Amino acid sequence: VGGVAAGPAAAAEAARVDPEAEVILIEQGRDVSYGACEMPYLLSGVVPAADALVVLTPEALAETRGIRVVTLTRVQRLDPAARKIEVKDLVSGHTRHERYDKLILATGARPHWPDIEGLQGDRVHAFRTLAQAASLTALAQDGRQRWTIVGGGFTGLEVADQLSDAGHGVTVLAGSRLLSGRIDEPTASILRSALQAAGIAIRNARAVGVRRGVGGAAIAIRTDDGELVGSDRVVVAAGTRPAVELARDAGLKLGPSGGITTDVHMRTSNSVIWACGDCAEVNHLVTGQPAHVPLSPNAFRTARAAGRNAARTGRQSTGKFAGTVGAFALCVAGIEIGVAGLTESAARAAGFDPVTATITHASRARRMPGREQILVHLVVDRKSRRLLGGQLAGKEGAALRTNALVPILREGGSVSDLYDLDLVYTPAVAPSLDPLLVAAGAVLKNI
Amino acid sequence: VGGVAAGPAAAAEAARVDPEAEVILIEQGRDVSYGACEMPYLLSGVVPAADALVVLTPEALAETRGIRVVTLTRVQRLDPAARKIEVKDLVSGHTRHERYDKLILATGARPHWPDIEGLQGDRVHAFRTLAQAASLTALAQDGRQRWTIVGGGFTGLEVADQLSDAGHGVTVLAGSRLLSGRIDEPTASILRSALQAAGIAIRNARAVGVRRGVGGAAIAIRTDDGELVGSDRVVVAAGTRPAVELARDAGLKLGPSGGITTDVHMRTSNSVIWACGDCAEVNHLVTGQPAHVPLSPNAFRTARAAGRNAARTGRQSTGKFAGTVGAFALCVAGIEIGVAGLTESAARAAGFDPVTATITHASRARRMPGREQILVHLVVDRKSRRLLGGQLAGKEGAALRTNALVPILREGGSVSDLYDLDLVYTPAVAPSLDPLLVAAGAVLKNI
Repeated sequence: VGGVAAGPAAAAEAARVDPEAEVILIEQGRDVSYGACEMPYLLSGVVPAADALVVLTPEALAETRGIRVVTLTRVQRLDPAARKIEVKDLVSGHTRHERYDKLILATGARPHWPDIEGLQGDRVHAFRTLAQAASLTALAQDGRQRWTIVGGGFTGLEVADQLSDAGHGVTVLAGSRLLSGRIDEPTASILRSALQAAGIAIRNARAVGVRRGVGGAAIAIRTDDGELVGSDRVVVAAGTRPAVELARDAGLKLGPSGGITTDVHMRTSNSVIWACGDCAEVNHLVTGQPAHVPLSPNAFRTARAAGRNAARTGRQSTGKFAGTVGAFALCVAGIEIGVAGLTESAARAAGFDPVTATITHASRARRMPGREQILVHLVVDRKSRRLLGGQLAGKEGAALRTNALVPILREGGSVSDLYDLDLVYTPAVAPSLDPLLVAAGAVLKNI
Repeated sequence: VGGVAAGPAAAAEAARVDPEAEVILIEQGRDVSYGACEMPYLLSGVVPAADALVVLTPEALAETRGIRVVTLTRVQRLDPAARKIEVKDLVSGHTRHERYDKLILATGARPHWPDIEGLQGDRVHAFRTLAQAASLTALAQDGRQRWTIVGGGFTGLEVADQLSDAGHGVTVLAGSRLLSGRIDEPTASILRSALQAAGIAIRNARAVGVRRGVGGAAIAIRTDDGELVGSDRVVVAAGTRPAVELARDAGLKLGPSGGITTDVHMRTSNSVIWACGDCAEVNHLVTGQPAHVPLSPNAFRTARAAGRNAARTGRQSTGKFAGTVGAFALCVAGIEIGVAGLTESAARAAGFDPVTATITHASRARRMPGREQILVHLVVDRKSRRLLGGQLAGKEGAALRTNALVPILREGGSVSDLYDLDLVYTPAVAPSLDPLLVAAGAVLKNI
């Protein structure tokens, strides 16, 4: 159930593991199996057409994977006792029931929509599905316009950046913290400066009201600091929530993050129902606590495990998803941001005693042309010296450098383990002492 | 003893740990503390002048670090029993003796010079010191010339690439394997193609003789496959050997790799003598065996440990160098090569049963402009599934991606640990399934 990323991946894995199984993929939207993370690049024309983001059409999923795909169909009720789902054909309006032996929920997340009167209808847009992205792209080609983006998370910033690249005027209402607190202030400061230098207005304010122009010719957002931000169009990208109504109404257990509770095999509290992707709660390997970490790599990994475990016989090996350290990257306004593990405040909330260091260091060897400054911000537990998280920001080399932190964070390694790494050195790409190591040395001095 | 990279680093650490100590740095050459790895970039003018590569002058080392620097002075004998060294002033020719309480050997490596009659004198050049690099740079500015590079290791390829960029005609006599066997054939094949596409002639041949033109106007190298390769100038860059004569003659223990034997504290077989940098043998963390791994990051790390341990009192913490996985990178002819751990043949020689996989995958998400293909070649032990090594090659993102392998290799982790990494994903820099993960999946299928 759910056809964007995790659903098709789980279905494909299930069909691979048991070629005799009848695998049915049900999606309420028009499209399945598409690259949702690339959608912002449609707005600027970097990705030329929405069709280009479709990985596998329903026909290709049927032909190459043996999966029956049903689109424009909503699963609106789940009856675990009878192992039945109630599905509604959104075109005909007809409702029918289907029986399942095993069920995989990949219902994803849905946009959080601020409860503000008037924040809907004409000139107000979501950016979650490929159909929404395609229609917004068509609107964005209609000459230069002023846009207000409600929300300063991934999607909000990427949409803002690509609209700005396309020549539009853009204001982002980012709330109190850029990227919704997923980065600490030193990293946020670099990101804010880069966005502003690219001509994007960043406001540390939240939307609280809407005022319409005469005849609907414009729209203004009233902010919590008393300003009115006028524009031609508003995009609401204020984060997402796991879409768990189906699971909740069927009595499946939900976790503290709001996602569907799963074990390492991605099994839910029902023995023949698995969950994967953005609707599932997973284990955060740094805190050891369940968490909602809606990132594409997690979607594919949890889907692979869910699909395998739903379809396998006793002789076939299980699929496991041990957990995540929440590593992600973002490229906007000419800079890269890379993040793994916990921020300082998340570390404190999880009961650690965080000590941090923030350094900047060149991306390439001294005297090499083209080198840029990279900021590295590390979060370490004072007593155990365990590495808890890291954030990088810079015009080059910040995103991929983040990956060296991931194995250490997953294993519970220390900042000394990081300091000891013999990372590659070559003048044109990395200085003799990598920025990550400079940062590790700085933390060790602060402990 | 030795002032290029490890020596100044060890001296600086010793002076920091014990500010009362009298720290003397002795270098036989003219320059100390310079970026030797950036020297090839002088040839093309990317780095504009040799002076720019000097990190700290003797005066700066004295003023900011409190180190007395003695250049153009050779330590020609070491008497451990008397704790004395015999030093020769290379300008005056005078010899004198100096006493030490603690001694650090950072004598580095010297070029391996093939034993070929006539491979010296006019038109034959070494490229090891800053003075040699500066004089070769001056020669390279005298119009387009034909150059033959004897040796296809790091230095040989970087010199070839920068001379070619500067408009010269270049032939590399690379012997049987590019990078002296530090990469397996799939990676070597990418590297060879890139060099050839850049107009550099790569010959799988070794130099065996020299023929001079009339009046010394040219020089030709005779190869082991019977060809004569004529050129205006020859650069010998046929690898290095640890410079251990001083240590050997003093009776210090040498290891199987030819380097000075050290423990994790970089102490030699003599209790008041430490060794660091390219002259010291270190622990290879994948084989568990002593090895000669002359890489800049190892030089600085071993130097830091040696300097600290030589200078510290009982109350101060020790410096340790647990070992290396030999990670390095190279940028030539528009491609990046990244390497960590063992090649397939090195793995076999170390007693493993290697299984490999070689894949190519895009550097960025599908449909994103500017994406390039990255080759990933992994070496894994069949039975234990332990990751033994990895090699990456591509126009972008190959060098920094290598770093994610380093923590796993250091900890003895498996290819499944690699496959489970939640590496960052952002369309403009990394695809949803990173090339490293695609390669890990391919190895798992081969086991």
